[in-house]
Amino acid sequence: MTKKLRVGIIGASGYTGADTVRLLSCHPNAEIKVLTANTHAGRAFSDLFPQFSGIDLPLMIEAEKADWSDIDVVFCGLPHGTAQDIIVNLPQHLKVIDMSADFRLRDSRVYEQWYGRTHDAQALLESAVYGLPEHYREKIKGANLVACPGCYPTAALLLLLPLVSAGLVDVDDLIIDAKSGVTGAGRSLKEQNLFAEVSEGIHPYGVAAHRHAPEIEQELSLTSGKATLVSFTPHLMPMNRGELLSVYAKTAKGVKADDINAALKARYDLEPFVRVSSPKVFPATRQVRGSNFCVLGAYDDRLPNRVILFSTLDNLVKGSSGQAIQNMNIMFGLEETTGLQQQPLYP
Amino acid sequence: MTKKLRVGIIGASGYTGADTVRLLSCHPNAEIKVLTANTHAGRAFSDLFPQFSGIDLPLMIEAEKADWSDIDVVFCGLPHGTAQDIIVNLPQHLKVIDMSADFRLRDSRVYEQWYGRTHDAQALLESAVYGLPEHYREKIKGANLVACPGCYPTAALLLLLPLVSAGLVDVDDLIIDAKSGVTGAGRSLKEQNLFAEVSEGIHPYGVAAHRHAPEIEQELSLTSGKATLVSFTPHLMPMNRGELLSVYAKTAKGVKADDINAALKARYDLEPFVRVSSPKVFPATRQVRGSNFCVLGAYDDRLPNRVILFSTLDNLVKGSSGQAIQNMNIMFGLEETTGLQQQPLYP
Amino acid sequence: MTKKLRVGIIGASGYTGADTVRLLSCHPNAEIKVLTANTHAGRAFSDLFPQFSGIDLPLMIEAEKADWSDIDVVFCGLPHGTAQDIIVNLPQHLKVIDMSADFRLRDSRVYEQWYGRTHDAQALLESAVYGLPEHYREKIKGANLVACPGCYPTAALLLLLPLVSAGLVDVDDLIIDAKSGVTGAGRSLKEQNLFAEVSEGIHPYGVAAHRHAPEIEQELSLTSGKATLVSFTPHLMPMNRGELLSVYAKTAKGVKADDINAALKARYDLEPFVRVSSPKVFPATRQVRGSNFCVLGAYDDRLPNRVILFSTLDNLVKGSSGQAIQNMNIMFGLEETTGLQQQPLYP
Amino acid sequence: MTKKLRVGIIGASGYTGADTVRLLSCHPNAEIKVLTANTHAGRAFSDLFPQFSGIDLPLMIEAEKADWSDIDVVFCGLPHGTAQDIIVNLPQHLKVIDMSADFRLRDSRVYEQWYGRTHDAQALLESAVYGLPEHYREKIKGANLVACPGCYPTAALLLLLPLVSAGLVDVDDLIIDAKSGVTGAGRSLKEQNLFAEVSEGIHPYGVAAHRHAPEIEQELSLTSGKATLVSFTPHLMPMNRGELLSVYAKTAKGVKADDINAALKARYDLEPFVRVSSPKVFPATRQVRGSNFCVLGAYDDRLPNRVILFSTLDNLVKGSSGQAIQNMNIMFGLEETTGLQQQPLYP
Repeated sequence: MTKKLRVGIIGASGYTGADTVRLLSCHPNAEIKVLTANTHAGRAFSDLFPQFSGIDLPLMIEAEKADWSDIDVVFCGLPHGTAQDIIVNLPQHLKVIDMSADFRLRDSRVYEQWYGRTHDAQALLESAVYGLPEHYREKIKGANLVACPGCYPTAALLLLLPLVSAGLVDVDDLIIDAKSGVTGAGRSLKEQNLFAEVSEGIHPYGVAAHRHAPEIEQELSLTSGKATLVSFTPHLMPMNRGELLSVYAKTAKGVKADDINAALKARYDLEPFVRVSSPKVFPATRQVRGSNFCVLGAYDDRLPNRVILFSTLDNLVKGSSGQAIQNMNIMFGLEETTGLQQQPLYP
Repeated sequence: MTKKLRVGIIGASGYTGADTVRLLSCHPNAEIKVLTANTHAGRAFSDLFPQFSGIDLPLMIEAEKADWSDIDVVFCGLPHGTAQDIIVNLPQHLKVIDMSADFRLRDSRVYEQWYGRTHDAQALLESAVYGLPEHYREKIKGANLVACPGCYPTAALLLLLPLVSAGLVDVDDLIIDAKSGVTGAGRSLKEQNLFAEVSEGIHPYGVAAHRHAPEIEQELSLTSGKATLVSFTPHLMPMNRGELLSVYAKTAKGVKADDINAALKARYDLEPFVRVSSPKVFPATRQVRGSNFCVLGAYDDRLPNRVILFSTLDNLVKGSSGQAIQNMNIMFGLEETTGLQQQPLYP
Repeated sequence: MTKKLRVGIIGASGYTGADTVRLLSCHPNAEIKVLTANTHAGRAFSDLFPQFSGIDLPLMIEAEKADWSDIDVVFCGLPHGTAQDIIVNLPQHLKVIDMSADFRLRDSRVYEQWYGRTHDAQALLESAVYGLPEHYREKIKGANLVACPGCYPTAALLLLLPLVSAGLVDVDDLIIDAKSGVTGAGRSLKEQNLFAEVSEGIHPYGVAAHRHAPEIEQELSLTSGKATLVSFTPHLMPMNRGELLSVYAKTAKGVKADDINAALKARYDLEPFVRVSSPKVFPATRQVRGSNFCVLGAYDDRLPNRVILFSTLDNLVKGSSGQAIQNMNIMFGLEETTGLQQQPLYP
Repeated sequence: MTKKLRVGIIGASGYTGADTVRLLSCHPNAEIKVLTANTHAGRAFSDLFPQFSGIDLPLMIEAEKADWSDIDVVFCGLPHGTAQDIIVNLPQHLKVIDMSADFRLRDSRVYEQWYGRTHDAQALLESAVYGLPEHYREKIKGANLVACPGCYPTAALLLLLPLVSAGLVDVDDLIIDAKSGVTGAGRSLKEQNLFAEVSEGIHPYGVAAHRHAPEIEQELSLTSGKATLVSFTPHLMPMNRGELLSVYAKTAKGVKADDINAALKARYDLEPFVRVSSPKVFPATRQVRGSNFCVLGAYDDRLPNRVILFSTLDNLVKGSSGQAIQNMNIMFGLEETTGLQQQPLYP
C-alpha cells in the first residue's frame, strides 16, 4: 500500500479524539487531514493537548465547514445524540467509524428509551455494523458505517459471547461488577469528575441504570437466541485509564474454570488482541494500559457450580480509539494490527 | 470518670497501630502507657510515624519486656499467627482487644485450615467474644478477650446479618464483590504494595481463597442456622483507606430495595456508627474516610427478584482501630462514641 | 464557658466550607446555626457533602436572607471579590472571620492590581487584622474582622518571619518553590481540575503571577522594614490536601541550618501548632494531613552560605478553616487549641 | 538495513529493564535475544511483567551464563556498584550501553566519594562516552561503552548546557528544585516506596546529598570552564513516571526569558526529541509521559535579573531506556528516532 489513507476526526477535542490522534500519528498508512471541534474552531490541536505540539496537524475547524472531498474515512468522537445528526449528512463516499453510542443499538425504540431522543437516521442505523472485530470481522470488511461498541460492552462481550454461544454459562444469571477509570466519562466539566471528588475513594454509579447494559444484552440475546437481561453495576475508580469486569456466573453442569479458559483460548487463539491469562496471574488493568489488548480469565468459585470471570482492557484504546483503528484497518484491507502494536505502558 | 484507662498497644508499628494511637490521642478517658514493637524496640514512635512527634508517647519496647502491672487494657495489632502466642501469656488482669485474626474463627480446625498453623490457645479462643458491637454488645460488656472482626467481615456482616436474620435475602446465593484500599495489606514490604504496582490500576486478588470468607460464613451460618458459603472476591484499589462491598443478592418473594432499606434503618436506628444511605446517593468510601462510620444502601436490580447492596467503611477505623476502641468503650462502661466522633476527612 | 458560640458560615458549599463544618462539628463550644450558599439555597448540606448526613445542620439559605440577630460569629468562605460586598453589609454585632483574600492586602491599590476590582470597603479594610495567630495574636483578640492569610502565605510566613526578623537570611534573595494539592483551587468546575488532568502528572502554574506573592511580600516588607520582593512559583500536585514550600535562601554571615532551626524552635516553642522537624526527618505533607499543624525545617545547602528551608501544612486546615477556627478561639477567649487537636490522618 | 541487531539486556527485572523491553519490542531493527536477571534465572519475563505475555522473549538467565557470541549490543540495567563488575568482564566485540551510574563520573575519586566503593575498571571508564546524544552525538557514534546520564542530569543538562555555554545565566547561582515520580527509585522493596507512603503526599529527599548533583556539576563545569556547584533538591511525587525540574537562575545583564527561549530553540531546532514550550503553556510531565521527549521553557521572574526555567521528561524513557535506545541507534548508524516515535500517553 503506497498511498496513505486520508483521515478526518470529527469531535476531536475529547480524550477519545486525543487517543485517536496519538495512535494514528504512528500509523504508517494513515494521515490526519481534517480535525473538527466546533467550540474550538480555528485553534491548534496542541492548544488543547500540548503533548502533540511536535506533530504536524491541521487546525481544528467546524464540522460543517470541513471539505470531505478527498477524505477516505472519518472517525466520529462526538457525544451520543449529536453524532447521528452529523453522520447522516456526511457525503456518501466516506467510510464512517462512529465511536459514539448512536448506531450501536439495533432497535431504535431501545435507543430512544435509553438515550432520550428519537433516532432520525433509521436507514443508516440498519446498515451499520457493530464494530467488534473478533465477532463481526466479515461484516466490518464491507461496511460503510461501523458502530464501535461501548467500552464496557467490548470487555463484557469478548468474555461472554463464546461462553454463551457454547452453553458453558447460564445466560440468565450473569452478574457484572464493572470498574472503570475516569476517562470513561470523557473530558466533560462535571463536579463528579474533579480530582478531589475521585482520588482516594471509590463509589458505584448508574446502578441498574447504565446505558451499556442494553447494549450488552442486545448482543447476548442475539447469541443466546432469547431475550437476556444482565445485572450490571459500574463503579468509578481513582485512575485515568482501564477497566476491569468481574463477572459472576453459574456454569453448565460439570463445567469448571479450566473448561472455560480452554474455550476462550481456542476461540481467540488467532486473535492478536485478546489474551487468556494464566491460572497463576489475575487479569489487571496494568497489563493493558495504553494498548489495544483485552485480557480474560476464569477461576473456580468456592460456591458450587459457579465461576468468577474477569475481563480487562484500556477503555480509551480497545474500548474506543484503538478498536476504531482496528476497524479501519479491516475496512481498508490493511494488516489488522497496523499502528496498534504498542505494548502496555507499565508502570 | 476521673481516672483514665491505662492502655498498652502490642505491635504498634503497623498502620493499625498508628491509627489506634491517632484515635486514642484524642480520647478523653484513655492514655497510652505502653507501646511494643519488637523490631523497633528502643526507638521513639515518632521515628516511625513523624506525624506524632508532637505527642508525648512512651518509647517502643519488646512485648516480652513490658510491665503490664498497672495497665488496664491492651490492643494487639500483631499479625495473625503471632498474636495468639503473645496474648496467651499476658497477665490475667488485662482486658485484651485483639485486632488480629487469631480469635475470630470459633472452630480451631477452620483456623488451622485457613491460617496454616494450629491454634494453641483453645481455652482463650472459647472465651473470646466476636467484637462486632452492633450485634454482640452485651457479650462484649463482660468479655476479657474481644476478637475484633476483619475489615471485610465488618462491612459484610453489618449489611447482611439483619437481612439474613429477617429472611429478606437468599443466604445461598450471596455474591460479594469487595474493593479495598492498600492499607488493608498493612505496612509489609511486598512488591505488590509498591506505589508503582498499585497506582493507576486495579486487579483482583485472593480469588476464591481470601481468609475473610470463612469469617463471614461463620457469622452468617450462625444467623441463618445452616452452613452457608458465600462468593467473595476482593480487589485492590489505588487508594489508601476505605473499602466498598457490592453485594448481589436474590430477594425473598416480593421483597424490594425499599423493604431492605427500611429493615436496615429500623435495625440500626439507634446505632451511632451505622447509617443507611438515601436512595438518591450511593454509598462511597469518601463518606467514611478517617471515621468510624459504616454506610449501607440497597437498590433494585434490573434482574427480577434481585437487589444490589452496598456497604462501605474505613478499613483502618470501623474496620480495625476504631471498632477496637468502640469495644474498649463498651468493656469499660464508657459512652460508646467517646473519642470516635471525628467526621470523615473529605476531600 | 457554658453557652456555645452561635456560628454562621457564608459560602459554605466549597471545600473550605466543608472543612469548617467538619472541624466545628467536633468543637465543644460552638454550634452551627446558619449555612449560606446562594446557588444551593433550600437544600440540605448533606446533599452536597453526604459525609455529613449524620450531623444535624441547618438548611442552606441565601446569604441575603439569613437572620444574623442571634449569631455571634460568621466564617466567610466566599471567593475573593465577592466576599467584601457581603461582609460590608453584615450587622455590626457580628465578629467576622474572612477566609477569602478580600481583606488580606492592606493597600487597596495592590488589591486592585492583583484582584482586578476596586476595594469598596476601605474602612473595614483598615480595621481588619491579618489572622496569623502566631504573629498577630494580640490584635486578633480585639478584632471584629479577621482576614485569614492565604494558604501559601501562612506556610511562607511562619517559616520566614522569624528568620527575616532576626536577620538570619537575606530577604532580597528568597526563592520559594511551592507545591500544593488540588483542593487549593477549590471545587470550581475548571478543566484543569479534572482528575484526568491532574493525576499522574505535575506542572507549574501562575508562574511569576500568583496572587499570594504580594501577600507574602507585604508581611515580609513590614518585618524587614523595606520593600521586599520574592520569587514565588507554585506547582500543582496530584493529591487532595497539603502543601510544601521549599525555600532557597542566602544566609547571613556564618549562619548555618542549625542556627536557623534553633531560632525557629525558640520562636515557636510555646506554639501548639508549629513544629520544627528533627534533622533526620524531612518535612512531609503526610505529617500534617487533616490537622492544624505546620512543620518547619532547615538544612544546609552544598552551595556555600545557603540553606534549604521547608514548610508544610494542610491547605484546608492550617491554611484555611483550621486557622480560622484558631482565630475564633482567640477572639472569644477560648483555649486556642479547642476543637483543633485531631492528629494527622496518615496514611 | 536488513539484519536485525541482536540485543541483550542485563539486569532486566527492574522498571528500566521493562521499559527497554517495551520500546525494543516495537523497534524494527532490533530483536531481544538475551535477558539476564540473576535472582529470577529460569523464569519467563512475563512472570515478572505479565503485560508482556503476548511477546516472544527468551527466558531470563544468570548474567554469567549468557552466551554473548552472536550478540551485537547489551543494555545494562543493573544497580550502580554492580554494573562495573559485570561490564568489565563482557567480551570485547559487544557494544555496551550502561544505564547505571558506574561510568558517568569521569573522575573515579568523585565516584568513590558518592557511590561508596572504588572504581575497578579505570580503563573502561576512560573510554566511556557520556550518552547525552544532543551534546555528545559524534563521540557516541564511535563509542564501545556509552554511559547513559541519570534522569535528573538529562533534564538539567538539556536545559542548562546551552545557556551556560552562551553565558546567558550565572553558573554560580543555579538552584534546581527537582520533582520526580516513584519509578525513579526502581522496583526495590523499601518502605518509603510503598503506596501508602507515597500517595496523597509529597516530601523532599536526599536534600543536599543526591548523587545526581555531582553528575550535573561535572558537565556544567566542563562547559563553563570552572568548578561549578549547584543547589539540587529532589522531591518525591505521588505518580509513577515523569520528572520536572524548576530551575531558578540569575541572568546575564539584560537577558530575558525570550532570549533564553530563542537560544534553546536555535540550539535544539533540529533535535527530534527536545522541544521548547510556547510562552502560553508551562511544561508539564503529562506532555512527555511514556515518550522520549524533553520539554523546556523559560519565564521571567518578578525578581529583577532572574528567570524561572523548566525541564520535563519521562524518567524511564528520555531519562533512561529511551535515551539508551537513542544511543544504540546512533552507535549502529540507524535513524536516530527509530522505535522511539510513540507520542505521549495522556491521560
